[in-house]
Amino acid sequence: MRAVTIRDEALHWDEHPDPRPGAGEVLVRVRAAGVNAADRLQVRGFYPAPPGSPPDIPGLELAGEVVELGPGATAFSPGDRVMAVVGGGGMAELAVVHERHLLPVPDALRWEQAGGFAETFTTAHDALFTQVGLGMGERICVHGAAGGVGSAAVQLAACAGAVVVATVRNPDHHAAVTGLGADEVVDPGEFTERGPFDVILELVGAPNWPANLQALATWGRIMVIGVGAGPKTELSLLDLMQKRATIRASTLRARPLEEKAAAAQAMIRHVLPLAAAGRLTVPVEATFPMADADAAFHRFGEGGKLGKIVLVA
Amino acid sequence: MRAVTIRDEALHWDEHPDPRPGAGEVLVRVRAAGVNAADRLQVRGFYPAPPGSPPDIPGLELAGEVVELGPGATAFSPGDRVMAVVGGGGMAELAVVHERHLLPVPDALRWEQAGGFAETFTTAHDALFTQVGLGMGERICVHGAAGGVGSAAVQLAACAGAVVVATVRNPDHHAAVTGLGADEVVDPGEFTERGPFDVILELVGAPNWPANLQALATWGRIMVIGVGAGPKTELSLLDLMQKRATIRASTLRARPLEEKAAAAQAMIRHVLPLAAAGRLTVPVEATFPMADADAAFHRFGEGGKLGKIVLVA
Repeated sequence: MRAVTIRDEALHWDEHPDPRPGAGEVLVRVRAAGVNAADRLQVRGFYPAPPGSPPDIPGLELAGEVVELGPGATAFSPGDRVMAVVGGGGMAELAVVHERHLLPVPDALRWEQAGGFAETFTTAHDALFTQVGLGMGERICVHGAAGGVGSAAVQLAACAGAVVVATVRNPDHHAAVTGLGADEVVDPGEFTERGPFDVILELVGAPNWPANLQALATWGRIMVIGVGAGPKTELSLLDLMQKRATIRASTLRARPLEEKAAAAQAMIRHVLPLAAAGRLTVPVEATFPMADADAAFHRFGEGGKLGKIVLVA
Repeated sequence: MRAVTIRDEALHWDEHPDPRPGAGEVLVRVRAAGVNAADRLQVRGFYPAPPGSPPDIPGLELAGEVVELGPGATAFSPGDRVMAVVGGGGMAELAVVHERHLLPVPDALRWEQAGGFAETFTTAHDALFTQVGLGMGERICVHGAAGGVGSAAVQLAACAGAVVVATVRNPDHHAAVTGLGADEVVDPGEFTERGPFDVILELVGAPNWPANLQALATWGRIMVIGVGAGPKTELSLLDLMQKRATIRASTLRARPLEEKAAAAQAMIRHVLPLAAAGRLTVPVEATFPMADADAAFHRFGEGGKLGKIVLVA
């Protein structure tokens, strides 16, 4: 097979041996694979793939068709449309995924949408529901709401009955994010006036601090899953005490296989039914052929996009 | 009645009208009242009493005998030994407490211990169990373990089957904190080598940061309930993400009445049985007559104590 390949901190379209599915694994012919910030970091050597993933093939999410089942894999059949979060190796013609990590693709999602669905929605669902228990009627601020995870978070929060304030830097995207279910879309400089928030989802980083803590409600929770704009901030522990606040932070990629499987099963129970009912979408900013991964990564790095950049086979 | 009274940022022993128990309330003749850091802050004007508490009488916890029941109060009888967390007003000959905030005093506790029990154990139990769900077999670091809340936390964590590392600045108290159930007692400069910790209880503040985050285990939780040594620290959100960490912070005093009642009921279910069985103690560093509150507060401020400073009637 051919695969996007990291060599000398650059992307190539190289030949690799076809992967073989082991026990409980499924071989997938990849049709689409979303680009994520971690892929770009990996090219620059900052974010190596976890053990068990191909070290030189990027790609944290994929969608495609089942072509072969490994020993003991029974949950899917050849030809099934599937998607998954993977530790790496998604940007290839073929990929091997454990069946407990696979999600069926609802008919409502086109390939390029499915290729950008798994990482973004799993990350958003895990953060908002598994980690900080967002509830109906709560007021949430989603920072970076026009991005891949942000647009997923806005939709899930709205589905769950939360009141959603979204921050979006590019004014061209305000209307689109409103269309995803946000009650209000504001410039990042204006979110504090829209609080207090029960939950704040941080996808941007340091520039929103310490304002995040000021805008938080009593017993509020700040969930940090992206810090692309800077990781360091000053924190007043006293302010945190007075708000009885929680700051949680997480990443999906570094987790062990059983935790990723648990996240996938939560997606099957709580998110895929919404996608099947047509209540969730993946805004796709642009698609690129896999052989043009370099152009796709460049476009991703420019920012200001709405939703996902997706590679297609 | 007479009461310790804050006037002109100093303590006096003044006459006040006797308080009267309202609906659901109980009048208590106070026998002992522990000194807490918040009392000292209140004298200096930094930490006003919450609405509904006497603004000029300090005292966040008390123990004494029931003398009169307000309308509808049925849970206790005159003569019962009781103790409670109160929003203020504990350092007086009489105090009024809602019956849902009252705890029965186990026979095993002497008055001066009971007077220093409610605030410390409620704060420690709420922090470790209600807030961060400390579990059997988890490894916890308790900072400031020789203080009132710290010594309570060490005992509760040990009772719950956690492995307890305690930091204590005064080497004279290391043996005593070991006697409370700590598996290891170390100088504050040495705790990082004893990690990684599933839970860190922060009762000291900024000096333990950012080391706290470095010493934390994956999925670890840091619970902040005291910052006397400084409230401000730098925080790396990226480090927090990589640990999938949680920082929670809280105070008890500012909570509404129903939340305090819930905390008291949790104490009745989960902590008082241990006290009744003789498995918990309150180390009392010194007692002072209420009329000598000034001397007691001075002793509290000197630090280096083991357990509580308690006023007695």
